[in-house]
Amino acid sequence: MRNFDEGRITRAVLERLSGARSPRARQVSEALVRHLHAFIREVRPTQAEWGEGIAFLTGVGAMCSATRQEFILLSDTLGVSMLVDAINHAGQGGTTDTTVLGPFYVEGPPELPLGADIAGPCAGEPMRVEGTVSDTGGRPLPGAWVDVWHSDAQGYYDVQRGDAGAPGLALRARFRTDARGRFHFRSIVPSFYPVPHDGPVGRMLEAQGRHPYRPAHVHFMIGAPGFTTLVTHLFLADDPYLDSDVVFGVKDSLIRPLERGTGGAVLRYDFVLPAGAQEEPAPAGSPGRQSERLP
Amino acid sequence: MRNFDEGRITRAVLERLSGARSPRARQVSEALVRHLHAFIREVRPTQAEWGEGIAFLTGVGAMCSATRQEFILLSDTLGVSMLVDAINHAGQGGTTDTTVLGPFYVEGPPELPLGADIAGPCAGEPMRVEGTVSDTGGRPLPGAWVDVWHSDAQGYYDVQRGDAGAPGLALRARFRTDARGRFHFRSIVPSFYPVPHDGPVGRMLEAQGRHPYRPAHVHFMIGAPGFTTLVTHLFLADDPYLDSDVVFGVKDSLIRPLERGTGGAVLRYDFVLPAGAQEEPAPAGSPGRQSERLP
Repeated sequence: MRNFDEGRITRAVLERLSGARSPRARQVSEALVRHLHAFIREVRPTQAEWGEGIAFLTGVGAMCSATRQEFILLSDTLGVSMLVDAINHAGQGGTTDTTVLGPFYVEGPPELPLGADIAGPCAGEPMRVEGTVSDTGGRPLPGAWVDVWHSDAQGYYDVQRGDAGAPGLALRARFRTDARGRFHFRSIVPSFYPVPHDGPVGRMLEAQGRHPYRPAHVHFMIGAPGFTTLVTHLFLADDPYLDSDVVFGVKDSLIRPLERGTGGAVLRYDFVLPAGAQEEPAPAGSPGRQSERLP
Repeated sequence: MRNFDEGRITRAVLERLSGARSPRARQVSEALVRHLHAFIREVRPTQAEWGEGIAFLTGVGAMCSATRQEFILLSDTLGVSMLVDAINHAGQGGTTDTTVLGPFYVEGPPELPLGADIAGPCAGEPMRVEGTVSDTGGRPLPGAWVDVWHSDAQGYYDVQRGDAGAPGLALRARFRTDARGRFHFRSIVPSFYPVPHDGPVGRMLEAQGRHPYRPAHVHFMIGAPGFTTLVTHLFLADDPYLDSDVVFGVKDSLIRPLERGTGGAVLRYDFVLPAGAQEEPAPAGSPGRQSERLP
């Protein structure tokens, strides 16, 4: 097979995939080639634009590190992460809605006792977070693992503060629910924030005329034996970016008002896990390495 | 805009692109989102498969270095580079056919006098390469720059030998055509070779059941003021991989027999450049940095 012109190259590549090692590898590869070639045929890039595309992807790769995942950020900002989320979590009636993982999860966060304060050195308005974890029948799930992480009052995650005056890990922990499926901890109220926009994804957002902001939220990853791990956020009501989240992650069911009493703000939610394959989290106690494990 | 399900997320992302900074940025971004989402909708990845996709792209990025361009290799092996080539070089009657740049071009190769031997420390069957550069009217182009690069007799490029016992740059140079548009140099006969397959692209090829080989060839990038830069190869006749080049780059018009006489093998070709925008190459004398400049 030689002399591939614009009309014949796609078929030639597809024929080359006929010996793929698994039906799924063949299916995914064929779809990738068809859609990627269709994209190229539609936009008809010049050689220089192709070079810009290569340089963009290379730059995204160069931005990735132990504490930054620029490809997840790219997936998030192009709506791919929420599309994958929607495909995998449609029609799980009665369970808590899901949303994106985001790029700031750290595998194996410090496991702390219920009631601990995770604010560390971060200043801000005190916030108590409390809730329960149960199944769709309303039965509480004792011993469920509850990983939480969120930004500080300036909108930065601990891992973004790593260069100078690093506070180490903060505003993140793993808890275990008590005998009645309850958890609670102390922290500070998070702020809305821009996703990291000093890299290629930031330049893409600028070219697309988009702001880089996410509304204030607290991340949760919750699991228990016999249940599908839940990845979600709670969003704070009245945030200015609820309607224009740069990663398209907001769902009404996940928005909660901060109840402000004499003891500071309180955020509460009762999570409901879907039954499913048993999953165990990565072991705690190896913090600082960003996850390649995904829910 | 909130609560995006599988049916609504794509439109939501497209609406977010309405303020793009340029019509082209909007056009490319919209097409990217539509085709990327269509791919995701077709293959319906699990969350774990999405994670594998992120890890694959991250691995491709991590493989890129000053002497390795894994994203170009990915583009080449998926047929994207040849599709872009076909889109940009259709119907240029009478000019030399083009093919992929490949990942081994080094910007600013050493400029050598005509007749120089570029083999350096590399052993192999001696080969003389000669030819002319002219316009479509048959007029010779004196002073055209002719960048050449090729693999050694074991199928490796100089930049792949960089770790131990590095010979430095070899089997690459820049020449200038003489007053009659001629060039010639000495080297050794290159071998067919596998593209670098110890990284993510190699694992992709294995999953797709494909061999990683390219037929033996010599790369050329040729330019002159007032002409569009030509990027092409000459392929050696009788190579076992001419019909299954892993990057789909072979064209019959670029296959040449080695003429073997008393003075060793001779490879010859008369190149014809298309008229076009004036282009100048990056300055010679800064070798060792791999190009982000593209034709």
